[in-house]
Amino acid sequence: MIKIISGSICSAKGFLASATHAGIGKNKEKPDLAIIYSVEPASVAGVFTKNKVRSASVNISKRHTKNGTMQAIIVNSGNANSCTGRVGIKNCKEIIATVSNQLKINKELVANASTGIIGVQLPIDNIIANIPQLIQTMSIDGEIQTARAIMTTDLFEKKIAVETMVAGKKVIIGGISKGSGMIHPNMATMLAFITTDAAISSSALQKALSSVNNESFNMISVDGETSTNDMVLMMANGMAGNNKINTPQDEGWADFVEALKNVCQFLAKEIVRDGEGATKLIEITVKGAKNKKQANSVVRAISSSPLVKTAIFASDANWGRIACAIGYSGAQVNLNKLAISLCSIPLLKDGLPLDFNEDLTFEKLKNKDVTIEVNLGVGIESAIGWGCDMSYDYIKINSSYRS
Amino acid sequence: MIKIISGSICSAKGFLASATHAGIGKNKEKPDLAIIYSVEPASVAGVFTKNKVRSASVNISKRHTKNGTMQAIIVNSGNANSCTGRVGIKNCKEIIATVSNQLKINKELVANASTGIIGVQLPIDNIIANIPQLIQTMSIDGEIQTARAIMTTDLFEKKIAVETMVAGKKVIIGGISKGSGMIHPNMATMLAFITTDAAISSSALQKALSSVNNESFNMISVDGETSTNDMVLMMANGMAGNNKINTPQDEGWADFVEALKNVCQFLAKEIVRDGEGATKLIEITVKGAKNKKQANSVVRAISSSPLVKTAIFASDANWGRIACAIGYSGAQVNLNKLAISLCSIPLLKDGLPLDFNEDLTFEKLKNKDVTIEVNLGVGIESAIGWGCDMSYDYIKINSSYRS
Repeated sequence: MIKIISGSICSAKGFLASATHAGIGKNKEKPDLAIIYSVEPASVAGVFTKNKVRSASVNISKRHTKNGTMQAIIVNSGNANSCTGRVGIKNCKEIIATVSNQLKINKELVANASTGIIGVQLPIDNIIANIPQLIQTMSIDGEIQTARAIMTTDLFEKKIAVETMVAGKKVIIGGISKGSGMIHPNMATMLAFITTDAAISSSALQKALSSVNNESFNMISVDGETSTNDMVLMMANGMAGNNKINTPQDEGWADFVEALKNVCQFLAKEIVRDGEGATKLIEITVKGAKNKKQANSVVRAISSSPLVKTAIFASDANWGRIACAIGYSGAQVNLNKLAISLCSIPLLKDGLPLDFNEDLTFEKLKNKDVTIEVNLGVGIESAIGWGCDMSYDYIKINSSYRS
Repeated sequence: MIKIISGSICSAKGFLASATHAGIGKNKEKPDLAIIYSVEPASVAGVFTKNKVRSASVNISKRHTKNGTMQAIIVNSGNANSCTGRVGIKNCKEIIATVSNQLKINKELVANASTGIIGVQLPIDNIIANIPQLIQTMSIDGEIQTARAIMTTDLFEKKIAVETMVAGKKVIIGGISKGSGMIHPNMATMLAFITTDAAISSSALQKALSSVNNESFNMISVDGETSTNDMVLMMANGMAGNNKINTPQDEGWADFVEALKNVCQFLAKEIVRDGEGATKLIEITVKGAKNKKQANSVVRAISSSPLVKTAIFASDANWGRIACAIGYSGAQVNLNKLAISLCSIPLLKDGLPLDFNEDLTFEKLKNKDVTIEVNLGVGIESAIGWGCDMSYDYIKINSSYRS
């Protein structure tokens, strides 16, 4: 039984957070520097961008995550610290060192994440000067400000917490995330931080997070861009007191993974819902694929297609564009069996167009939640993923972001 | 010496064309059915979409092209005859049979091309009824109307003719093309028809066209979409009287290929310039790549990136988005040597941001022709390609196309 509860990253036992405006981003209305802290060293797992041009923060946090234990994550918005060379690396290390000194913990227990403009050096003095106060004000009430601090072009903060039973003990998993441009499979400029009081080894935690990631954050697309800075970091501090999960065979594994999937899918969908200029969330289900990889590639081709996205924006049942995206996805298709539905209204069956009620379809497509169902007619594999429509505001936001 | 001359597909000796409004598309202002005819059977070469969901016209024209000889191409806009099943195949065959009967030529000498909406049956009676008149009115003056007949959302017709010397004889190559959505490498909804009076075998013609295609039509992107209907067809009827080119070793090969490249690159760039909602043509040059494939993939990642396209629309020197696209292209990058320029103004060198004149860059980016120069710092291969910016009008056009 998974129960959604209030709160987010500070809902699980032993986690504190705080945020402040450190003068990194231009927007003075919102905080831009935050810290998430576990009172006990926690097992850690992470997923990182595969972009070859990436932030120093990604490389260093990845290395620290590999050690298996973490206690603090310091994150800023307004500046990606990407394409910043040796100075960028030095700045990242200085931030981590300052946090580690102030908290009196080993620097390998600290991760750093950044999001924002590429190719500009961090205002490092501002950041360093704000760290002591940031640490002094950490509390379980800091989670909302932290969710706000990681936002860039996001319009609302993304947060969730769930409660479940793991091996007879109550366990809480909570998380926050941010989008909202450069969102695409393999991590885009999205950040997500997840905390839990479950007792779980770092290797089991990594296994759980990687698997769930492939069914959540890796199945969303806002604009087909994979960014330089993305990461999902998760800390598990064991304070729930369950028997420690060391392998998928251990008691409670399935319940833990299921709860984590709820958290990650919720946060992933929130990112898409708040995609730049998005007015609708599109859920894409692909069935009848030869294998999982092909099913995924069809989901991604559809969710990334500007022509599909603009048609959905217009509430236009233009399934031909969906068929076209299926055709160039690289997946095997049986053209005599291909089926496409929009909002469960069948439009194509056995590869042939059906008569359908245009007015009803138009009405359904005007909803904030739209579904696309595809059957490739080849095999038995399936996949599900999420995208958003593309509106005038996508152009507006992205033709004025830097300047 | 390649000289641009007036005209297009009827500039070379022995080619006629005509066009009419057959009631296929909704727009009654423009013709939507056209024929291109060579008075002599001609060597033929073609390049076709790789989309697995494709029009019957693609499959049948590809088969007829393989025979090596062609004499007529009948083409319609307003309807793609794609996702139309057996009826679609039957309709395509009926159109070809009617043309073949009327012209008294073998049906294997006829190709058919379609562009327009997917999933709607052709108004076959209208088309068949118009063929006799279409053939009766064929003339060398029909080329402009034919260039108009193949347009869908295009704003202007795309045409060119060039004259060159091939093995001591004057040879003319002319062509027309259309875009302007679903334009991406591996053929998008783009059509191009090219005619020449050069004497060249079909195998040599195919070699020339395939090679030139990889440096022209396959290097453009409007919106990352590969369509169901694209094709480039080229007829060479030998009426220039040059010694026939049978292999690349034969006299005149290099001159012929160079002239063809001029024609194809011109038509390809015209497609991008007239991309849906485009206000600027972007030429992307990538150097220092490990190999050609990686150079091409960087060109395509940049030309397809919505974030780069919207930045160029805003005349914003947001090179970070270019760096990001390079990073996810899959190509090898030396982060300590990476260089990026915009309109020849260096913005990133040795992986580090440079100070640059923002005002001057903004002025240069406001031009209709913008260039992006990248050096990956890895090897010696290079590639060049073209894309366009993304504006409000892209959304406008594509959220109202079908309805």
